[in-house]
Amino acid sequence: MTRPTRPLDAVLSALSPTFGDRLSTAQALRDQHVAAESWLPPAPPDAVVMARSTDEVAQVLRLCHAHGVPVVPFGAGSSIEGQVNAPQGGISLDLSGMDRVLAVHPEDMDCTVQCGVTRQRLNEDLRASGLFFPVDLGAHASLGGMASTRASGTTTVRYGSMRELVLGLTVVLPDGRIVRTGGRARKSAAGYDLTHLFVGAEGTLGVITELTLRLAGIPEAASTLMCSFDDIGAATAAVVTALQFGLCLNRIELADAVQMAAINAYGGSTLPEAPTLWIELAGSAATVAHDGATLHGLLEGAGAARIERAKDAGAAAALWRIRHSALYAARALRPGIKGMSTDVCVPISALPACIEGIRAVVERTAIKAPLIGHVGDGNFHMVLLFDAEDPAETAEASRINAALIELALSLGGTSTGEHGVGLGKKAYMAAEHGPALDLMRDLKRCIDPANIMNPGKIFDL
Amino acid sequence: MTRPTRPLDAVLSALSPTFGDRLSTAQALRDQHVAAESWLPPAPPDAVVMARSTDEVAQVLRLCHAHGVPVVPFGAGSSIEGQVNAPQGGISLDLSGMDRVLAVHPEDMDCTVQCGVTRQRLNEDLRASGLFFPVDLGAHASLGGMASTRASGTTTVRYGSMRELVLGLTVVLPDGRIVRTGGRARKSAAGYDLTHLFVGAEGTLGVITELTLRLAGIPEAASTLMCSFDDIGAATAAVVTALQFGLCLNRIELADAVQMAAINAYGGSTLPEAPTLWIELAGSAATVAHDGATLHGLLEGAGAARIERAKDAGAAAALWRIRHSALYAARALRPGIKGMSTDVCVPISALPACIEGIRAVVERTAIKAPLIGHVGDGNFHMVLLFDAEDPAETAEASRINAALIELALSLGGTSTGEHGVGLGKKAYMAAEHGPALDLMRDLKRCIDPANIMNPGKIFDL
Repeated sequence: MTRPTRPLDAVLSALSPTFGDRLSTAQALRDQHVAAESWLPPAPPDAVVMARSTDEVAQVLRLCHAHGVPVVPFGAGSSIEGQVNAPQGGISLDLSGMDRVLAVHPEDMDCTVQCGVTRQRLNEDLRASGLFFPVDLGAHASLGGMASTRASGTTTVRYGSMRELVLGLTVVLPDGRIVRTGGRARKSAAGYDLTHLFVGAEGTLGVITELTLRLAGIPEAASTLMCSFDDIGAATAAVVTALQFGLCLNRIELADAVQMAAINAYGGSTLPEAPTLWIELAGSAATVAHDGATLHGLLEGAGAARIERAKDAGAAAALWRIRHSALYAARALRPGIKGMSTDVCVPISALPACIEGIRAVVERTAIKAPLIGHVGDGNFHMVLLFDAEDPAETAEASRINAALIELALSLGGTSTGEHGVGLGKKAYMAAEHGPALDLMRDLKRCIDPANIMNPGKIFDL
Repeated sequence: MTRPTRPLDAVLSALSPTFGDRLSTAQALRDQHVAAESWLPPAPPDAVVMARSTDEVAQVLRLCHAHGVPVVPFGAGSSIEGQVNAPQGGISLDLSGMDRVLAVHPEDMDCTVQCGVTRQRLNEDLRASGLFFPVDLGAHASLGGMASTRASGTTTVRYGSMRELVLGLTVVLPDGRIVRTGGRARKSAAGYDLTHLFVGAEGTLGVITELTLRLAGIPEAASTLMCSFDDIGAATAAVVTALQFGLCLNRIELADAVQMAAINAYGGSTLPEAPTLWIELAGSAATVAHDGATLHGLLEGAGAARIERAKDAGAAAALWRIRHSALYAARALRPGIKGMSTDVCVPISALPACIEGIRAVVERTAIKAPLIGHVGDGNFHMVLLFDAEDPAETAEASRINAALIELALSLGGTSTGEHGVGLGKKAYMAAEHGPALDLMRDLKRCIDPANIMNPGKIFDL
């Protein structure tokens, strides 16, 4: 009598002829296929399979579906809520080799890419076309992963997030069926919007293998300024007016006083340790000049101090370098500590109440928590600098995050603007969605009855 | 022994105490609850129930779910593919009484309305705020219906369609559960995108009772021009360049030579009977002036003839009156005939091939078919003027529509840009979606296992 084969072993031996050395159970490789950017503990898979085509993905899913083996899609591994961890074991399906730009249509301002293409790589490919893909998040992320977590970036205030920029998908369903959703038409009223069902599903409903994306024309001109305010409310009010005026706003970023102090400490600068905005305008040279003058007046009227308008591209880059130093400056407040990044998003009018409310909570603790925000979208991050080895600090950071999410929900907001749910925010989904969470579960059971696709992410069944 | 009660009668008697004279089986009322704007034959319901609240909608759906009685949501009745017909009988759920604007948040540029509010009514309410809701389709439509058919309009090239502008919904599911999807935050990565599942579902997955919508600031200035071209390809090429330049385009409409001849005949004008564009720019006065000059040069370079730029708002309105006369002018070519409006949408680079291809097909028939288009989106309508009483003409019009859809799909497009599927385009869904159509059916069975919600629309089970 032979010992019964484990489901995983059955899948791996069936895959072996196709995948050869692109299938591995080596510990070192498994240890690389975890959510390394996350504050959550890593959870490696039992095996790693590297797919090169939609058909190969379908082969993996068919087998895993038949044998009940979990599959965790893996792009660049940059997600920060544990989305690519494998707490239930199974296969990490590494899609980074699916990295071809399949088509670029400059006249239609769209392109089709494989899921493993990174946004940086796509923009390098597009350089000669005068077009670019405008979701510019901080991480070196794959476009499939960005779609799966409904990612956004600093230019989302102008161009939208992955939600607005994905026109169509190729998706492998959990049972191995291959479907194409959406298409290249700018709009369609032909049946259910399957594209948006998979954007943001974090790989729990299938694997996105190809994406058709909207592109944008590179603006002729841009202009950056940086200014500070006495309080967050005044900064927000200025942004609201600029948005209502329809100025050609491209980026509107905010740092709070704690973050600015961290930046000064980190960079040796003497910037005002007060709420600070970075604003970029972009468009035709004439529009940028005109809107720049309007914006300047509007900021002065709103009480902005020390408005520094970059005179040229080099000066603008220097201002943005200050903004981009924020995360490093935050972490330098407590060397060796990674921190947990919060991610609430609220209606912009509620930003002051949300930020001031959580600041009051943080100040009653010993946790340092610099804040940066995509203020045009109402989304901000606090880096909670706690020692993950210290249970008391870990509990305190979790209490702050929970208080922040409760506050944001009470203000009409969401627990996560752009990082997704993964393992880290599951606990808040019932409060955020109410009965709609049951509908999400119904959809999951309908599409993935064997619960093989990234099981345990977003919600438990 | 009493005769068993019909399911419909059981539902109606249970509803009667709540609805009183807002429940009726009078023939005259039933005959008003049909798709009167459609080329399809009307199919009245067995009864009409007028709901005033989400809870009332839930009560109707719970009972209909229990008894297996079809429910057809009815807003303003303006859909044109038979969406509000009741070919399987049942209840027409009239939502026009749910017409309250529940909240307007000028700072956040959003509002929440009940589903029966029309877009005209909302814009009247918003007038003092400096904001407006930018989906401006031709019909006097309800916002719930517009979301359900994923409607768009002439300004969609700038602001997006209902797909981009609905932030959140209250939906009554087929079993009477009430869920809230999305919210007021500008973006969210918190779980499945349920909002987009219901936008475009044509009432087959539940009833949208409330909508949270994005608003836009009314632009400071606008400028309109009209010009003609020797051929569609030259007109399209000019539009592509203008889009790539990122000009502040607000509307880009096209009429073909046949349509322009119809306009001349209808209005006694002597406009060039050649492909004609109407273009509106909107933004700050400075931007409009600057982009207007750029556009003018660009159109001249593209071979535009007789560029007529409106000198003031009155002149602009006169140019737009010509555009808005198109449907009346088309129908005047054959008095007493309503016609069938096609609705394909293709990548903009494929517009010339699509239009020239179908024009060649039409010219081999006796059917007149003037064409107008939202060229910035790649979407156009031909009004096929056929006599619905004449089987041969009806068959010919259907053949033209089928040929057009086949051509559009082969060019990467969709059968419907903005009218939806309803009963009229069901036959084309398999060709458009392939295996994804089975996934739509799976979702329908999951959410509406008793198949009570607008049964037989979009696809058959």
